[in-house]
Amino acid sequence: MKVLFIGDVVGSPGRNCLKQFLPKLKQKYRPDITIVNGENAAGGKGITEKIYHEIKESGADVITLGNHTWDKKEIFDFIDDVPSLVRPANFPDGNPGVGYVITKFGNKKIGVISGQGRTFLPPIDCPFRKLDEIVDEVKEKTPYIFVDFHAEATSEKQAMGWFLDGRVSAVVGTHTHVQTADERILPQGTAYISDVGMTGPYDGILGMDREIIINRFLTSLPSRFEVAEGREQINGVYLTLNKEGKAESIHRININEDRPFFD
Amino acid sequence: MKVLFIGDVVGSPGRNCLKQFLPKLKQKYRPDITIVNGENAAGGKGITEKIYHEIKESGADVITLGNHTWDKKEIFDFIDDVPSLVRPANFPDGNPGVGYVITKFGNKKIGVISGQGRTFLPPIDCPFRKLDEIVDEVKEKTPYIFVDFHAEATSEKQAMGWFLDGRVSAVVGTHTHVQTADERILPQGTAYISDVGMTGPYDGILGMDREIIINRFLTSLPSRFEVAEGREQINGVYLTLNKEGKAESIHRININEDRPFFD
Amino acid sequence: MKVLFIGDVVGSPGRNCLKQFLPKLKQKYRPDITIVNGENAAGGKGITEKIYHEIKESGADVITLGNHTWDKKEIFDFIDDVPSLVRPANFPDGNPGVGYVITKFGNKKIGVISGQGRTFLPPIDCPFRKLDEIVDEVKEKTPYIFVDFHAEATSEKQAMGWFLDGRVSAVVGTHTHVQTADERILPQGTAYISDVGMTGPYDGILGMDREIIINRFLTSLPSRFEVAEGREQINGVYLTLNKEGKAESIHRININEDRPFFD
Amino acid sequence: MKVLFIGDVVGSPGRNCLKQFLPKLKQKYRPDITIVNGENAAGGKGITEKIYHEIKESGADVITLGNHTWDKKEIFDFIDDVPSLVRPANFPDGNPGVGYVITKFGNKKIGVISGQGRTFLPPIDCPFRKLDEIVDEVKEKTPYIFVDFHAEATSEKQAMGWFLDGRVSAVVGTHTHVQTADERILPQGTAYISDVGMTGPYDGILGMDREIIINRFLTSLPSRFEVAEGREQINGVYLTLNKEGKAESIHRININEDRPFFD
Ligand SMILES: [Fe+2]
Ligand SMILES: [Fe+2]
Ligand SMILES: [Fe+2]
Ligand SMILES: [Fe+2]
Ligand SMILES: [Fe+2]
Ligand SMILES: [Fe+2]
Ligand SMILES: [Fe+2]
Ligand SMILES: [Fe+2]
Repeated sequence: MKVLFIGDVVGSPGRNCLKQFLPKLKQKYRPDITIVNGENAAGGKGITEKIYHEIKESGADVITLGNHTWDKKEIFDFIDDVPSLVRPANFPDGNPGVGYVITKFGNKKIGVISGQGRTFLPPIDCPFRKLDEIVDEVKEKTPYIFVDFHAEATSEKQAMGWFLDGRVSAVVGTHTHVQTADERILPQGTAYISDVGMTGPYDGILGMDREIIINRFLTSLPSRFEVAEGREQINGVYLTLNKEGKAESIHRININEDRPFFD
Repeated sequence: MKVLFIGDVVGSPGRNCLKQFLPKLKQKYRPDITIVNGENAAGGKGITEKIYHEIKESGADVITLGNHTWDKKEIFDFIDDVPSLVRPANFPDGNPGVGYVITKFGNKKIGVISGQGRTFLPPIDCPFRKLDEIVDEVKEKTPYIFVDFHAEATSEKQAMGWFLDGRVSAVVGTHTHVQTADERILPQGTAYISDVGMTGPYDGILGMDREIIINRFLTSLPSRFEVAEGREQINGVYLTLNKEGKAESIHRININEDRPFFD
Repeated sequence: MKVLFIGDVVGSPGRNCLKQFLPKLKQKYRPDITIVNGENAAGGKGITEKIYHEIKESGADVITLGNHTWDKKEIFDFIDDVPSLVRPANFPDGNPGVGYVITKFGNKKIGVISGQGRTFLPPIDCPFRKLDEIVDEVKEKTPYIFVDFHAEATSEKQAMGWFLDGRVSAVVGTHTHVQTADERILPQGTAYISDVGMTGPYDGILGMDREIIINRFLTSLPSRFEVAEGREQINGVYLTLNKEGKAESIHRININEDRPFFD
Repeated sequence: MKVLFIGDVVGSPGRNCLKQFLPKLKQKYRPDITIVNGENAAGGKGITEKIYHEIKESGADVITLGNHTWDKKEIFDFIDDVPSLVRPANFPDGNPGVGYVITKFGNKKIGVISGQGRTFLPPIDCPFRKLDEIVDEVKEKTPYIFVDFHAEATSEKQAMGWFLDGRVSAVVGTHTHVQTADERILPQGTAYISDVGMTGPYDGILGMDREIIINRFLTSLPSRFEVAEGREQINGVYLTLNKEGKAESIHRININEDRPFFD
């Protein structure tokens, strides 16, 4: 079982990058399932129905979200109508959308769960207890379980990795938009990385125009962030799982002008 | 000009790891200067005079600190008496210690500056304006300038990198205890990485005992964090600078059982 | 039905103040039940078993807590053994202690519920949904329901007041240690005040030594807070409820040298 | 010397309330100077040039601001052209606008200083050190100095009061939109209150529509806040100062349907 996951797609540069590289990555890795985090796909904040379909057509089987889930208002109109869009499961009960999906491919299934941290992020339900519950549910249907844990603090991410070690196939972090170099297989067989990084501008700050953001740090004055222009990057991970759903390997994908793609 | 930098040394496992690997790394890379972040060297929080000397004897030329600078009370007794200890420069005026040192080696000098971010961290002086001032001062004495920017948010770290691009040799992040995979030379010649990671326990959470921390996330109950036991890791970067102080290369060092050291 | 509530008792000055004024206040108001917030009773942080009994003997029927609940470790040894100690109900499931008690007096009962906000405070369970549940439970047993909502942000406190308006007798805020002047009866009959204030030193900062705290704001250096000495104050509210449990009146108690006590 | 200060005017209900009550309050108290916090005057967020003039015409001599200073973009077009608008002095150097004004009335002058706290608010320059500098400057021109300290945390507000005690005539808090009952003259002669409260809707949450805000606490879903409708309130303080600029009295103004205005 092979899984390809692509980190937070930022704006049109991110979507372009996806169109360009996802086919190549699929040809290279031949994943059974491709998951893309799309929380920044629409102008850096949120996702629209059109962009949801665009990312699906680019090759995503499932799209995960994060703290920017609700940034585009039209999300409320379509989130309950599309089959492969997952927002953090520990958003309060009654929120639109779902916190996980179970996707079939051939005669197999994989559960894709989204969770969101609370450290340095808004107070929502406990991600540990919520994911604990969901993992038990999903486990009854399939041994393949992929968790996108969207969080700021490295402590909370590592805690989730160790908390779920042996119970899920992978805990893969998103949100900081910077890929970490700590990918590993934890002792009980869960693949872990603190953050897979982002997909979109390579010369911005988290994908946004850097002059605007530097100026905000210097002046504290408000400003409208804009997606950066120029060179691009795509970040993600490629995982292989054994029949028991344990991770056999985790490989970082980190493509930009400094680290070009090779077949 | 070659620089070796080692990320946050955590407790006795971190110090042991330093003793074991720093000689090997020095033999391999032959750095002109070795800098070590020691903010967690004493039991995970702060530094003592004895441990300052221990790290120096392990091979550090300069020791940098961060938000844990003042955690051990005896720091106030020795910080102004030792020559190679640097706490964040943007701590309020009047704080003990210094925010940068200029170190000689042979007939050359390098400025080592520490700064601390404010996003998700206590309110102190503006790191951008403070480092802007200091860089101008140091620039008059040497083209080699190394910045350890201790910060939580990837946005603030990237902003500092781009803000100082072309004016310093390197902006190297610390504090999250997780090494990032975004090392690069920015267009104007500054080496950058969001975080070099930590040195100490490999199977803890940021170096601390993981059961205690997972339990805290689950229960919100207070607990005394303890440095984890077991396998170890050492994280850092190796930089080469040209005569103008521009970075020529930045190479991540990331040694643990999964990524063993090779000569 | 008459209720007397006294705000956060801080250290020995607070406990002394309670001993001195609680009998006088009881003589004046003749409350059916007296509730005291004791989260800062032991040296400014937490509560011990001895101090629990001391406050009870000073005249408290029920003692409520807040974010300092667990500050004294011995709390874990006695919280489940004493009958009248209430910690915030929205602490995670499995936490020791209880989030409400139902207390008898004569042939009547009153429910005393503690809740804690999440804005600018650690992430715990949702206080709105948790108190919603508990209020339904308690409502089956008695119409008299008193809520101590321990929170920082005025928005969250006012939201809780309006959220429970008509369902509980009173929503009374604690935690900021400063009494507010917004006491009122909300349209559906719930008495509300954003904060009742604290009991203890009058010339400190939230009851703590002011030089230490001013110095911390100026230097950002750590320091051990100490309970202030000197003049004292006692803050609270007095409520009258009708037979349906609706509030008829809310009266602020605010006694210090500038506002002396009158019989 | 008599000073009237009115707390955060929220939207058109606040401005209406000001038009209705400011003349009556002036008739009653006959202040030498009237200061109004206008940070929420334009639809709850920020101020426009038109509204600046409207508030001036309602009777304000000086208008202070706070964390919402820059919320309406047109502020950048007029803040440097109007004479009586003060934004927090510890905003970073180079920000438009001024942090204090010295206003003449008859043959006297009063300095009106704005400062903003950093606890639970964005990181800006240190308010203690900045106000320390400004107070020294203003002191050379007049003994009458009024400080509007816009802050969230009661600890930071009380610290500022005690820090400036004896050096300014008054430290008056704003921002929480809830009036506190801790008004007093500190031992060295500075009038102090943690918060004067707000002017505008009486049945909202901090002046905003309460259903929207309660719903946000329950669901964590984003929503556009709207100024509440219905009954109104006006909050402020009235101060008398002696010839040395020391406070002789501080009197809370708190007018709403539950506490009607009396001549
Ligand atoms: Fe993102
Ligand atoms: Fe995010
Ligand atoms: Fe550290
Ligand atoms: Fe740190
Ligand atoms: Fe308290
Ligand atoms: Fe508290
Ligand atoms: Fe305001
Ligand atoms: Fe404000």
